[in-house]
Amino acid sequence: MSFVIAGGAGFIGSRLAEKMVSAGESALILDNLCRGSRAYLAPLEKSGRVTFMEVNLADQTATREAIERYAKEHPVEAVWHLAANSDIPAGISDASVDLRDTFMTTYSLLQAMKALGIPRLAFASSSAIYGEFPPEVALREDIGPLMPISNYGAMKLASEAAICAAAASWLERAMIFRFPNVVGTPATHGVILDFVRKLKASPDRLAVLGNGSQQKVYLHVEDLIDAMLFIMKNAPGRLDIYNIGPSDAGCRVSQIAEMVVEAVSPEARIEYGSADRGWVGDVPRFRYSVDKLGKLGWQPGMNSVQAVKKAIAEIVAREKLS
Amino acid sequence: MSFVIAGGAGFIGSRLAEKMVSAGESALILDNLCRGSRAYLAPLEKSGRVTFMEVNLADQTATREAIERYAKEHPVEAVWHLAANSDIPAGISDASVDLRDTFMTTYSLLQAMKALGIPRLAFASSSAIYGEFPPEVALREDIGPLMPISNYGAMKLASEAAICAAAASWLERAMIFRFPNVVGTPATHGVILDFVRKLKASPDRLAVLGNGSQQKVYLHVEDLIDAMLFIMKNAPGRLDIYNIGPSDAGCRVSQIAEMVVEAVSPEARIEYGSADRGWVGDVPRFRYSVDKLGKLGWQPGMNSVQAVKKAIAEIVAREKLS
Repeated sequence: MSFVIAGGAGFIGSRLAEKMVSAGESALILDNLCRGSRAYLAPLEKSGRVTFMEVNLADQTATREAIERYAKEHPVEAVWHLAANSDIPAGISDASVDLRDTFMTTYSLLQAMKALGIPRLAFASSSAIYGEFPPEVALREDIGPLMPISNYGAMKLASEAAICAAAASWLERAMIFRFPNVVGTPATHGVILDFVRKLKASPDRLAVLGNGSQQKVYLHVEDLIDAMLFIMKNAPGRLDIYNIGPSDAGCRVSQIAEMVVEAVSPEARIEYGSADRGWVGDVPRFRYSVDKLGKLGWQPGMNSVQAVKKAIAEIVAREKLS
Repeated sequence: MSFVIAGGAGFIGSRLAEKMVSAGESALILDNLCRGSRAYLAPLEKSGRVTFMEVNLADQTATREAIERYAKEHPVEAVWHLAANSDIPAGISDASVDLRDTFMTTYSLLQAMKALGIPRLAFASSSAIYGEFPPEVALREDIGPLMPISNYGAMKLASEAAICAAAASWLERAMIFRFPNVVGTPATHGVILDFVRKLKASPDRLAVLGNGSQQKVYLHVEDLIDAMLFIMKNAPGRLDIYNIGPSDAGCRVSQIAEMVVEAVSPEARIEYGSADRGWVGDVPRFRYSVDKLGKLGWQPGMNSVQAVKKAIAEIVAREKLS
């Protein structure tokens, strides 16, 4: 069978494509190459099992036409939708960024799937849809009220809503994965890459946004892909929503700063800000429930600290700093 | 102070405008006149306190320009956003209807408010955001998971999400009202108007979509407006979400059919379908919690059956059938 991977030249999408190709599947990769890079796909394109098309997925006609062209020769089983704006602060100062890249991409893909009769959708949603709960409240998939505090979170929630409505009418199967912070390579953004690059530019100091006390769960991209494929295979429903993550309490920004300094520039001084968060829309601390996924039978190979540690090593190697 | 009422030529918006004018306020009414009618506003326009502009609220530039023009002479205190597609089945067969009229209207208004520095938003959301829960579960404002089963519900939820994100950053105050079925005049759609018109066309029979067992809560438009103004005045937060409705278990479609037949054409035969719902996306039965609003100190004057009865009399009088 063949798949469409929207955002497939990005950080997570390219790793998913790699996994699928190594399992003998074929994929059409659609990406606007805004954050992603065709270089990530070079080895896969050589395999002959990956077709790449550069498309603005917010453009409904272009999206439908690209998939239609591919579907003529490859029966498409499912769409994996991993395309989104990943710069949360950019979307807070300008709401049009997440409207276009985080929501309209979903809308276009749904319209194309309906027109072309593609029966299944796997969607990368986010812990950002939950907004800000007291830190003692476990964020289970069925919690409410949902009051996202960033346009990124809002447009992920809007995407979920549109998918739910489709699953109540024409869409045969939908899986919604809510991601925590995902780390690894080829990271295109995120706190680790940010720290590594800052230290590369000025090796004697690392300025941290916020006071370093923000604590979040981190999942390594390899675990994430393993979990998504596990859910795809084992989840029972027509519409399933799963948090994906480790079951620990997470890792503080200050710990990440120390680990990156240790790996990149051990003499550097870490300078913290005073705010309890890095930016408006940044949830400083949350407890993520992965009980539902645990009951389905999946556990990550790494906890948050291990995932961050591995990702730092991978990112540093890639940035050719060590 | 002055207000903007988006969708102010519609069923609820025109009644809200009437109430405001009688309280001495001024309002700019924006409407695409797709369902609404300028005739509803005629007495208000004579008062000199209402300005009307025909605008497609999904058009960001047109929306901002219209408000900007009005705001030059009237300091705008708040936007009341009551514009939406109200034909739920139409939005299920064509998702673009609710994208444009139910969500993009919200997006345009938020962008205009941000650009023009308007500090407060009151938004008409819907019980449709809840999707389908088991009938024994009370739909409280903080329930989850939210899985709407119509594009209308999905785009109302998307609107709520965008408003929450705005309230976390630049919007000073936001009130989200979740409406049940609202009845009264000048209704532009809904089961009562539908039944009245069907009987007008063929007085000897009334064909009902579904088996008549669907049970919903109904609120009279006069109670609704009273509740919104009460919440606006008394709710404590920067971002408040309230279900508005009666506290009863609702009224069955079969009861409504019998009451309309009684009022319009007592000899007519009622013919039911076999489905438990009128259409895909129709939630057959739900229990709506209005405890939060009750605790704030508001109760409706009419229960569901009383609201329906009054609305039937009003609609029949208006349709000049009696």
